[in-house]
Amino acid sequence: MSKKYTAEILGTFILVFSGCGAAVVNDVREGMISHAGVALVWGMVVMSLIYALGDISGAHINPAVTIGFWVAKRFEAKYVIPFIVCQCIGATMAAIFLKILFPDHPTLGSTLPYDGSVWQSFVLEVVLSFMLMFVILCVSSGAKEKGIMAGAAIGSVVGFEAMFGGPISGASMNPARSMGPAIISGNTQHLWIYLVATILGMLAAVPICQLICNGDD
Amino acid sequence: MSKKYTAEILGTFILVFSGCGAAVVNDVREGMISHAGVALVWGMVVMSLIYALGDISGAHINPAVTIGFWVAKRFEAKYVIPFIVCQCIGATMAAIFLKILFPDHPTLGSTLPYDGSVWQSFVLEVVLSFMLMFVILCVSSGAKEKGIMAGAAIGSVVGFEAMFGGPISGASMNPARSMGPAIISGNTQHLWIYLVATILGMLAAVPICQLICNGDD
Amino acid sequence: MSKKYTAEILGTFILVFSGCGAAVVNDVREGMISHAGVALVWGMVVMSLIYALGDISGAHINPAVTIGFWVAKRFEAKYVIPFIVCQCIGATMAAIFLKILFPDHPTLGSTLPYDGSVWQSFVLEVVLSFMLMFVILCVSSGAKEKGIMAGAAIGSVVGFEAMFGGPISGASMNPARSMGPAIISGNTQHLWIYLVATILGMLAAVPICQLICNGDD
Amino acid sequence: MSKKYTAEILGTFILVFSGCGAAVVNDVREGMISHAGVALVWGMVVMSLIYALGDISGAHINPAVTIGFWVAKRFEAKYVIPFIVCQCIGATMAAIFLKILFPDHPTLGSTLPYDGSVWQSFVLEVVLSFMLMFVILCVSSGAKEKGIMAGAAIGSVVGFEAMFGGPISGASMNPARSMGPAIISGNTQHLWIYLVATILGMLAAVPICQLICNGDD
Repeated sequence: MSKKYTAEILGTFILVFSGCGAAVVNDVREGMISHAGVALVWGMVVMSLIYALGDISGAHINPAVTIGFWVAKRFEAKYVIPFIVCQCIGATMAAIFLKILFPDHPTLGSTLPYDGSVWQSFVLEVVLSFMLMFVILCVSSGAKEKGIMAGAAIGSVVGFEAMFGGPISGASMNPARSMGPAIISGNTQHLWIYLVATILGMLAAVPICQLICNGDD
Repeated sequence: MSKKYTAEILGTFILVFSGCGAAVVNDVREGMISHAGVALVWGMVVMSLIYALGDISGAHINPAVTIGFWVAKRFEAKYVIPFIVCQCIGATMAAIFLKILFPDHPTLGSTLPYDGSVWQSFVLEVVLSFMLMFVILCVSSGAKEKGIMAGAAIGSVVGFEAMFGGPISGASMNPARSMGPAIISGNTQHLWIYLVATILGMLAAVPICQLICNGDD
Repeated sequence: MSKKYTAEILGTFILVFSGCGAAVVNDVREGMISHAGVALVWGMVVMSLIYALGDISGAHINPAVTIGFWVAKRFEAKYVIPFIVCQCIGATMAAIFLKILFPDHPTLGSTLPYDGSVWQSFVLEVVLSFMLMFVILCVSSGAKEKGIMAGAAIGSVVGFEAMFGGPISGASMNPARSMGPAIISGNTQHLWIYLVATILGMLAAVPICQLICNGDD
Repeated sequence: MSKKYTAEILGTFILVFSGCGAAVVNDVREGMISHAGVALVWGMVVMSLIYALGDISGAHINPAVTIGFWVAKRFEAKYVIPFIVCQCIGATMAAIFLKILFPDHPTLGSTLPYDGSVWQSFVLEVVLSFMLMFVILCVSSGAKEKGIMAGAAIGSVVGFEAMFGGPISGASMNPARSMGPAIISGNTQHLWIYLVATILGMLAAVPICQLICNGDD
């Protein structure tokens, strides 16, 4: 299992370092990357990591995905906590690295609700997480063609959700991704939204996918 | 069949919530996503849904596509009406969700002709819908390689048509996608364009594809 | 053969209508699409057409590609002229359609050298066409994986060449694509660049590919 | 072997001509391409070249990648120096071509640390190169699906790293890519960063990949 743990630590590190790094660099260089560019970074990094790590650890790199797979009975209970710990270590390491490289940045890419509207961001994160887990569960079972394109499909969901959800809720869909920068930059006041809403949304996708994908095996 | 119906409802919900959501958020955040970003959302969401739902319901998520497949004799007549009803339910649910999240937005991403030029938008929607159905019919028959990349090819068409057609006609290509936000936001004055032109364009693609793809089976 | 001819007419129509349409709409809507968006349209339309038409006509949709394949002995001599005629018909039809939809646009997306520097655009078009034909010849022979991803690879080349070459030479790489809008809009003064340079560049790629790909069969 | 050498020369030429060309044209046309567009060029050109040249030379087109494969015992020692020489020839040829086309451009797309912060760029280049080599090594061993999508995954990494790292360090990840424009434009003062950091980062990825991918064969 130590291979899988290392893969999850490194995968989540690369995810958070690149995605939050894009948000930070965009601020430092005054919008040079643009929001659309930052959103594409999130999509591309997820796609790459699924192809790189998919056959090693499953490339969860997201505690809510790990919990979702466990509830869907596609992931063993005893590995849930270790996977989540690894993901949180990777995300926190990434935030520390960003802090070292950009010590003056106030948020390090933390997810924060736009205009202080907590309920709007909460609902949006539930829906974004639901849609992401729905596609993950659908493409990871069924026809052969899906196996090849699963990484492109899931990366694409992360890309378009970051694109349209980012300006409102930050488009976290991932408790570890929100936790790392929040703790290291001290922006923890809204962190609960991203821990609770993401897991709720992903759990909601499980029974619906089992209904339409026959996806429990 | 209830699996297929659920898949079409959910697929159309995700399509309209994400695509129209991108247009709405772009307005709310004063162009932060940019038109190019919104267009990429439409392409990416279609690609993802084809891989997620393609082997369940065919991932039509578009009444004009369902009608086109039926006329091309690749879809059974008795399922045409139920599919269209499901797609309209999904699209309307998505518009209601957007209304709840963004109650002040005037159009919720409705398709409206630029500069009030009805005939220009009508002709453009016919051509856009023709080109989309032409590619859909071509990639869903023939060589094996097509099967794997069909979702990327079709998502790509939606992406580039949204990119160049969006600023003129809204680039609907989908009656349900236009109907949901139009009804919920009360912008129904131009809805007929998007109901009629999209179906006309898609029907025109059927005989041409049958000619060059041997595509009737 | 009439299937192949129809495929080339329609394919070149879709290519020129969408790509030049993007340039025209970007002008009409004052930069709303952005140059990057226009370049992505070119890449995405080529990718889609390769998957849609690749096993019907080969999806040349470009006279210089047809000539290149013929010189590389991968395309029969007797079909070269008919293919080129079909491509020119499709491109001209697309320009006429754009003229009808946007009667006031002065160039309809014609390729024109930036700042009047003819030699700079000529050299750039030779290099762009060389690189495109080089990748086309490489990915259309050899390993099996290439077959599946050939459309993505070639679409990608068109996308990145349109992105970086477009602001200087227009990034034609295709005599028919330049000819259609030039004739219909009356901007024929620089058309010779795009007829000569593209063919020269593509011809130069043939012997080099045969050297390194063993690509003559 | 002369096929492989020619492939590496041409591949690195196309990489540097297109990527640095995008940076140069973006300056010449006052930001018309945008930074996001330039970053996408880097990602797309790498993806295309992997599909075009992957089965000929391996499509290293990067001395640090060649050294990494050699240290990982996946590339024969006697070809390391010739490959690096070919890559440097290709990159220098590309810079000379850009100099001819754009004689007034001061840097020809050289990588330069933002705001003169050498250590920040050095650390970032180490991390960027590590992440790139990590994905390269992972996707080039293991499951079959990876073979098909390896080019997309690696191109994607180059794309997102250019997107978020470019505004700080130039996002070289490639000693030859930095050397060509630096020498031809005379911006060699910071070249050592890009020669040392890239190789260090890629070497660091080798033992980690061998640990988690069983990747030595």
